[in-house]
Amino acid sequence: MGSWYYETFEGKTRYGVMVRDVLYSAKSDYQKIEILDTIHYGPVLVIDGIFMTGEKEEHFYHEMLVQPAMTTAARMARVLIIGGGDGGTAREILRHPGVQSVVMVEIDPMVVEACRAHMPTLATAWSDPRLDLIIGDGIAYVKRKDLEPFDIIFLDGCDPVGPSEGLFNAEFYGDCKRLLTEGGVFALQTGSPILQQELFVDTVRALKEVFQRVAPYFGPAPLYASDQWSWTLASDSHDHLAVVDQRARLVEKTAKYYNRDIHRAAFAVPNNLREILKPHPGLPLTGEGEDDGGRL
Amino acid sequence: MGSWYYETFEGKTRYGVMVRDVLYSAKSDYQKIEILDTIHYGPVLVIDGIFMTGEKEEHFYHEMLVQPAMTTAARMARVLIIGGGDGGTAREILRHPGVQSVVMVEIDPMVVEACRAHMPTLATAWSDPRLDLIIGDGIAYVKRKDLEPFDIIFLDGCDPVGPSEGLFNAEFYGDCKRLLTEGGVFALQTGSPILQQELFVDTVRALKEVFQRVAPYFGPAPLYASDQWSWTLASDSHDHLAVVDQRARLVEKTAKYYNRDIHRAAFAVPNNLREILKPHPGLPLTGEGEDDGGRL
Repeated sequence: MGSWYYETFEGKTRYGVMVRDVLYSAKSDYQKIEILDTIHYGPVLVIDGIFMTGEKEEHFYHEMLVQPAMTTAARMARVLIIGGGDGGTAREILRHPGVQSVVMVEIDPMVVEACRAHMPTLATAWSDPRLDLIIGDGIAYVKRKDLEPFDIIFLDGCDPVGPSEGLFNAEFYGDCKRLLTEGGVFALQTGSPILQQELFVDTVRALKEVFQRVAPYFGPAPLYASDQWSWTLASDSHDHLAVVDQRARLVEKTAKYYNRDIHRAAFAVPNNLREILKPHPGLPLTGEGEDDGGRL
Repeated sequence: MGSWYYETFEGKTRYGVMVRDVLYSAKSDYQKIEILDTIHYGPVLVIDGIFMTGEKEEHFYHEMLVQPAMTTAARMARVLIIGGGDGGTAREILRHPGVQSVVMVEIDPMVVEACRAHMPTLATAWSDPRLDLIIGDGIAYVKRKDLEPFDIIFLDGCDPVGPSEGLFNAEFYGDCKRLLTEGGVFALQTGSPILQQELFVDTVRALKEVFQRVAPYFGPAPLYASDQWSWTLASDSHDHLAVVDQRARLVEKTAKYYNRDIHRAAFAVPNNLREILKPHPGLPLTGEGEDDGGRL
């Protein structure tokens, strides 16, 4: 028999998973890290009591964070990941033969060690010679002036609490932009548009202060305390709907959620969010969904 | 202080809501009916321990069950609802001035009474003179030979257990088809494609035995024990993407989730489901998403 492990959202709702065993539990310099053996999701990474990723559902989050940028970016030779210590984001990036090098800057080596040992389906990237793991602070890293620029930057962090707090503001986004090649893309998770609507809207607005084109997109993420998650592509000149078929076909061979239909569909903005995002000055959020003039 | 109320999925996962008060609790001839006053969702209808609908999230389910059919149907003068006793489906249908009459066949009068008393935002339809409530068995109703046909039929039932069991098979679907006008549409919820994948696939296949065109679509439904829900449009000649702009614009004035972008987007099929649904002979599931020949 196991026991229930809950993540509780503001004392209002909670999501529980039945746990057979605790595979790993330790306190690092930054946070409490647990890996639970759950009946439903297999191994689940929990950080400071928040569900991060589970082996049987992580494809939703990782495919959707990574593949919309990878299938549309002008170039993908050099890729940077801020965070991403569980390995899933690197795995998705490294599916593409056009990637020459991936630098991952993860602050907490114990996350990497724990996931490497207990979440094998997330661990395929670690043996890829194109991956260069740097244990360090992503916020400091992107301020460095001695780096070659990157074609795509992924922010794969937690919610903006604890060590991830400095990852959700215009200053950090500006540093990332400076590190991008011409036409480069910045991709990040932007929280739940339902449960964390204010955080989502604030993040999109902060991105719009820095980037010319900011396109949020949506999809399921079963382990998170919400029924819908969001990610955002930010750039100055990139077309988030211009999917390169050859790259997408490669991904579709093994992807569980992502395909070209899902790519286009994910950028459709729920009606209540269109209203909320509209009053802010700036370019259109997405290329599709332009009103035909007759609405309202 | 309140207490947690849980819906548990096969002993593997559970979703809990913090309950301030029990507004209604009774056993009808068919099922146990409760209405809970929750902090997060306001009043929540629970039937036999399963979360059915909550005031602050019901728009996802009801808009998505109803509006894709309403904005694309050839005609909408006469509409039938099987189930739908909470009133949300009728409310969404009756937004359209083109609707002349709605017949609702709900088996359990106590669901109607409980929701009418305790879920006011769902109750606006009851005072509309176009709505005709029949307390009776929907399975028997659609077998009747003396009825005028309907332009659109909605099945708004529970999962296929208890009194809803006979609502998920080809015989029932055949009866519904016989009751449709030429070019008419049948719309129904088809469960979670993630948690209830087998039920979802079986239901789509049963619909394909009866209808020429079967188009499942997807969206969030926060109160259900899954991160993604599905609904399906079934017909012999209807184009599920041919949205009538005038109708959609009307809906978009007040809809919280549905709009024309969301309509198109919802029919994108996740990659793993394309594979699962593919081996079954039959017409393409959707008009979009046709492969360009290069995949695989």
